[in-house]
Amino acid sequence: MQLHLSAWPEIEAYLTTSKAILIPIGSTEQHGPLGLLGTDAICAEYIARAAGDEGGFLVGPTFNVGQAQHHMSFPGTITLRPSTMIAAMTDWANSLRHHGFERIYWLNGHGGNIATINAAFAEIHHATSFDQSGQTHALRCSLRNWWELAGVTELIRSLFPSGEGSHATPSEISVTQYACPGTAKSAEMAVKIAPSGPIFDAEDFRRRYPDGRIGSDPTLANPEAGKKLVDTAVRALVREFQMFTKG
Amino acid sequence: MQLHLSAWPEIEAYLTTSKAILIPIGSTEQHGPLGLLGTDAICAEYIARAAGDEGGFLVGPTFNVGQAQHHMSFPGTITLRPSTMIAAMTDWANSLRHHGFERIYWLNGHGGNIATINAAFAEIHHATSFDQSGQTHALRCSLRNWWELAGVTELIRSLFPSGEGSHATPSEISVTQYACPGTAKSAEMAVKIAPSGPIFDAEDFRRRYPDGRIGSDPTLANPEAGKKLVDTAVRALVREFQMFTKG
Amino acid sequence: MQLHLSAWPEIEAYLTTSKAILIPIGSTEQHGPLGLLGTDAICAEYIARAAGDEGGFLVGPTFNVGQAQHHMSFPGTITLRPSTMIAAMTDWANSLRHHGFERIYWLNGHGGNIATINAAFAEIHHATSFDQSGQTHALRCSLRNWWELAGVTELIRSLFPSGEGSHATPSEISVTQYACPGTAKSAEMAVKIAPSGPIFDAEDFRRRYPDGRIGSDPTLANPEAGKKLVDTAVRALVREFQMFTKG
Amino acid sequence: MQLHLSAWPEIEAYLTTSKAILIPIGSTEQHGPLGLLGTDAICAEYIARAAGDEGGFLVGPTFNVGQAQHHMSFPGTITLRPSTMIAAMTDWANSLRHHGFERIYWLNGHGGNIATINAAFAEIHHATSFDQSGQTHALRCSLRNWWELAGVTELIRSLFPSGEGSHATPSEISVTQYACPGTAKSAEMAVKIAPSGPIFDAEDFRRRYPDGRIGSDPTLANPEAGKKLVDTAVRALVREFQMFTKG
Amino acid sequence: MQLHLSAWPEIEAYLTTSKAILIPIGSTEQHGPLGLLGTDAICAEYIARAAGDEGGFLVGPTFNVGQAQHHMSFPGTITLRPSTMIAAMTDWANSLRHHGFERIYWLNGHGGNIATINAAFAEIHHATSFDQSGQTHALRCSLRNWWELAGVTELIRSLFPSGEGSHATPSEISVTQYACPGTAKSAEMAVKIAPSGPIFDAEDFRRRYPDGRIGSDPTLANPEAGKKLVDTAVRALVREFQMFTKG
Amino acid sequence: MQLHLSAWPEIEAYLTTSKAILIPIGSTEQHGPLGLLGTDAICAEYIARAAGDEGGFLVGPTFNVGQAQHHMSFPGTITLRPSTMIAAMTDWANSLRHHGFERIYWLNGHGGNIATINAAFAEIHHATSFDQSGQTHALRCSLRNWWELAGVTELIRSLFPSGEGSHATPSEISVTQYACPGTAKSAEMAVKIAPSGPIFDAEDFRRRYPDGRIGSDPTLANPEAGKKLVDTAVRALVREFQMFTKG
Repeated sequence: MQLHLSAWPEIEAYLTTSKAILIPIGSTEQHGPLGLLGTDAICAEYIARAAGDEGGFLVGPTFNVGQAQHHMSFPGTITLRPSTMIAAMTDWANSLRHHGFERIYWLNGHGGNIATINAAFAEIHHATSFDQSGQTHALRCSLRNWWELAGVTELIRSLFPSGEGSHATPSEISVTQYACPGTAKSAEMAVKIAPSGPIFDAEDFRRRYPDGRIGSDPTLANPEAGKKLVDTAVRALVREFQMFTKG
Repeated sequence: MQLHLSAWPEIEAYLTTSKAILIPIGSTEQHGPLGLLGTDAICAEYIARAAGDEGGFLVGPTFNVGQAQHHMSFPGTITLRPSTMIAAMTDWANSLRHHGFERIYWLNGHGGNIATINAAFAEIHHATSFDQSGQTHALRCSLRNWWELAGVTELIRSLFPSGEGSHATPSEISVTQYACPGTAKSAEMAVKIAPSGPIFDAEDFRRRYPDGRIGSDPTLANPEAGKKLVDTAVRALVREFQMFTKG
Repeated sequence: MQLHLSAWPEIEAYLTTSKAILIPIGSTEQHGPLGLLGTDAICAEYIARAAGDEGGFLVGPTFNVGQAQHHMSFPGTITLRPSTMIAAMTDWANSLRHHGFERIYWLNGHGGNIATINAAFAEIHHATSFDQSGQTHALRCSLRNWWELAGVTELIRSLFPSGEGSHATPSEISVTQYACPGTAKSAEMAVKIAPSGPIFDAEDFRRRYPDGRIGSDPTLANPEAGKKLVDTAVRALVREFQMFTKG
Repeated sequence: MQLHLSAWPEIEAYLTTSKAILIPIGSTEQHGPLGLLGTDAICAEYIARAAGDEGGFLVGPTFNVGQAQHHMSFPGTITLRPSTMIAAMTDWANSLRHHGFERIYWLNGHGGNIATINAAFAEIHHATSFDQSGQTHALRCSLRNWWELAGVTELIRSLFPSGEGSHATPSEISVTQYACPGTAKSAEMAVKIAPSGPIFDAEDFRRRYPDGRIGSDPTLANPEAGKKLVDTAVRALVREFQMFTKG
Repeated sequence: MQLHLSAWPEIEAYLTTSKAILIPIGSTEQHGPLGLLGTDAICAEYIARAAGDEGGFLVGPTFNVGQAQHHMSFPGTITLRPSTMIAAMTDWANSLRHHGFERIYWLNGHGGNIATINAAFAEIHHATSFDQSGQTHALRCSLRNWWELAGVTELIRSLFPSGEGSHATPSEISVTQYACPGTAKSAEMAVKIAPSGPIFDAEDFRRRYPDGRIGSDPTLANPEAGKKLVDTAVRALVREFQMFTKG
Repeated sequence: MQLHLSAWPEIEAYLTTSKAILIPIGSTEQHGPLGLLGTDAICAEYIARAAGDEGGFLVGPTFNVGQAQHHMSFPGTITLRPSTMIAAMTDWANSLRHHGFERIYWLNGHGGNIATINAAFAEIHHATSFDQSGQTHALRCSLRNWWELAGVTELIRSLFPSGEGSHATPSEISVTQYACPGTAKSAEMAVKIAPSGPIFDAEDFRRRYPDGRIGSDPTLANPEAGKKLVDTAVRALVREFQMFTKG
């Protein structure tokens, strides 16, 4: 069930059965010469919607631009300042809380988002902690990266024993190839496996990782692997969301 | 051409031929008993992508949650504070400016966004006006509501001579029925044509417009009308975006 | 009745009879070689105070610096960032709400303010929409541009059938000549009627409109026209404010 | 010379002779049963304009709502949050700096503003201190309370040897009676001289100072005293502004 | 009693006997060739803790970085923007209020903090003034500069009849020499007594005060004077804090 | 070498040899019935200063209040909102960058700070990424939790094979017992080992962890263990800081 494809009476009805919703959260940032700029949002959104359909739970709109300052030396990247992202996530959460939601499960597609998402949770929970009116019910936020859902990390390891790396990975690109048929790119890679290292600002990033990849060989990506990853992730997500709902 | 389905070298290449991009901007808010919560984002996104394909220009990710405080008494609505929306739009614009974009055409699907979008433009242009470094090139932002594209207003009038109203209109719902097959809803309407009036806060809104519609009869919506509206809007948008690019 | 010329017991007494107040809102920005930098604040303030006297309603202090980033290439212009203006208007509104006011009618003198004023209203109404304490009573804000009061647009058309334009207009300058005797300026105009076009940042503005006017011939301005405009505006405003009070 | 009554070419000409401007800054807050809500803005504005006329220097628009949270239990008071006031003052100062002004002399009419004005100066100077572009010229802000201008404190002491107090003072009310003929109020005072003490929040303030005065007997106010105060203040201000301009 | 050396049950117990706490507040900024960068925080903290021990009251953590933009041309200075400092002090105060504290006495070590501290108080009291829930109890904040405690100004005058000045003073440096044995520095002074004057931005400050001192001769500092200052300040502070607690 | 105990010429000299500084960062929050409210700041500060002395590098002031909203149901806890913490850390970093520092190593004592610290890094690096002036040199921030320094995790495991838990741990309390002699507390524990689980808001936290501990048995703490932990951490920190300086 997708919020943006529902009418308000359907959400009203859903709330009589569950107070939990899933928000996919991604980023719009370069993913190397082969990866889509929308990779992180596409992965989170595709897996979330498939799981929502299978598990009968509600999936909200996708938070599609996140924290990507370090990718700004590659054209097409769009980033929020962390402080803006915290304000926006807080507004989303407060809107959902206003309608009676008590649990928001954020399915994340971008490692660079993790810190800011958790800081936003603290900002959201802060308001609850300081509220003494007795009128604001508690809202719990929880974060899960799709590649850490039960079984997915293991599957990635078996699919791509080398060349997975940490940015523009064959696994995430496989998911987009499966989710968005016809969008696979081809390009010459200067080096098969990209270098690895730390992340600071954008110029430094481009100097370290000239084509945008970190430690990965995305030429390994294929839609069949994408299907396997999605299937495994969806199965785990349905179970985990149910747990979260009850938690 | 869609940014989120492109790799960064494709955007780099695009920038050698054009400095203009289109950003669809909508809202996630109730649209009456029949309309989708995602109506405004869906309309703007669908028309934008079709025009981008036809006109060969770049369409960015959709800004999918906007200014909808007045719809908050209907479950499912999500809203940003205007100050958050200004911060987020500024971040998007500054990211695109950083890559060399000089024109952002925002195709809007929600009347309630207009004021805040224009305020955000003033915030963005303010930075240009106060910059004295000579290093920041000017960025121009422009807003167009899809229903005001050349020929669309007239088409709406001929398709729905009565019952168009101003919120949860048959025209926008027709577009979603065409763009998202299988999402049409049915519901009993307490009154055929909803009341009209001003907009203040959410509670007042619900008192005036009990089922969420303003002045409209959305039962008139149909996918065939949606196709006509999309076709007319796309034709006009392709022409207008070209003008904007040169302007 | 003017708030700044009243003592607090007078406002306490007023509140037993009415919960409505008018705030004049202008801008401090160039108005071409002939127009006063304070034109927009002067027009709104003068009309508001005359109407307040005639209609017996309360007029608050004038919000005299607004959104004028596009005029910054002309000396003397002062502007707020839109986000600052939203914060300041919110503080004014919350102060008045605290005393029991339930209606604020903002009489505006500057087209460039409209978007930010409406965004500020959304910010103010947002707080009401999200308040669940039952302790904050609703506050309604409403905007009216003085040149759109009943009869004024028509009068302008008849007084200045050509050369009214959209900035540094003969009508607004006529009002200041009437309201502030002795402040009329004279200057050579390079062209009789200034060019027209869109508005982006300040440098672009000055390039398009070298002496600051848009589409206008302010040499047509005269205090007699100013008197007619004020009289018509005041009559309409007294009626409209009464309606607003009851609305 | 008043900025709001000037056209931009006049300011351009002024800047060739002086880089200094005076901004009157007041508050809109209760001043006891007899004092005007606009007292602080009126005093600063009236003295500033008279001095500007005599000294031939430029006086900008009046910053008419300030820091008055502690007066909020009396109807009519309007206050900014300190953080908003800092943002607004920063915007005013940056606008003036943009045009080439290098000195802003803020003539203050409200003791409660002093801390926030000085904090705003620190915010404004902070930007200069951190700027390394070499492109932003330094801007110096300076604060003067009108009642501390040379000779004024002594005059107050001789005019009102007792009953001056610290809020709703006979001296400031005398100035408004002189500046705004016909606005003098009369009221019974429960006690001749109001109590004195510290200031915290609004409720506490009203408990300590039931009619809004602190330590004062405003029935002593008279327009003749007002004239003397204005004359003395104007003389001192002309001299001091000249010093400031050269400083 | 020091908060950071207590466990939470001890604070719970303290609150049954007193609702008052002292927060030392300083700055990290240059204090001339001889003075420690931490001088202001060290003085406030040392005196506060000694008084807390003697008077049996609670001393919180030290707010150790304040408003020091004007010292930024000297390496080692760290400063908050005033707006950040207001936000941080508000968070500290709201946390303490949440636990039931009703009085916060801020013992200040830095003249440059005074305006921003008082602006922060206004921001904190503003929230109380606008709260209508009846659930937020009032919190009173009060500021005291340690060098203005009863008897201290007189002692300074007698210890350092000349050369005290206003920044990097022998009195504050004496306190640090007493509080932090072994940290005394020696350096050649270009002039015995530093120049005096106003404060604007950092570059201007360094031009006026080349080695960072204002009007002072810190070579006069000695730990014996420091001990006398501390003893006098502590005695006065114990008495004053008790008064404040009851006030 | 400690910044707050240095005079500015000493920092100027240090900068000719190194562009790196260490900032200890903690929290002021409950640590169970036995732990000090200042535990996290004390641990980070003590280890940092000892390492700075041994390694000859510069240690700045301690950032002593952090992100602790979840501990707010225990008296004495003080917390910043994440957005305030980001603003404050940004100000600290910009101040240091202004003086020429290029590396800031933040030694952290509180798990709850990690997300917000990393979000603040993104905010700081964001400014570098968007700066096109060529005048702002890059600043790199890096985070290390003291308990993850080389060898420390292993040492903790051997010292406290059971009962370490994740909050109010015997290891951190041991460090404070060693660092602050005489501050050890004693208390009856309702259960030997506290429960474990997730963290949301403060009320929920207290319900899950009634005495404030998570999974720990702090009665195991002892100063001898503290000494071992400090010694191991200091050795690792000296090495790691040298690497960071060169990185």
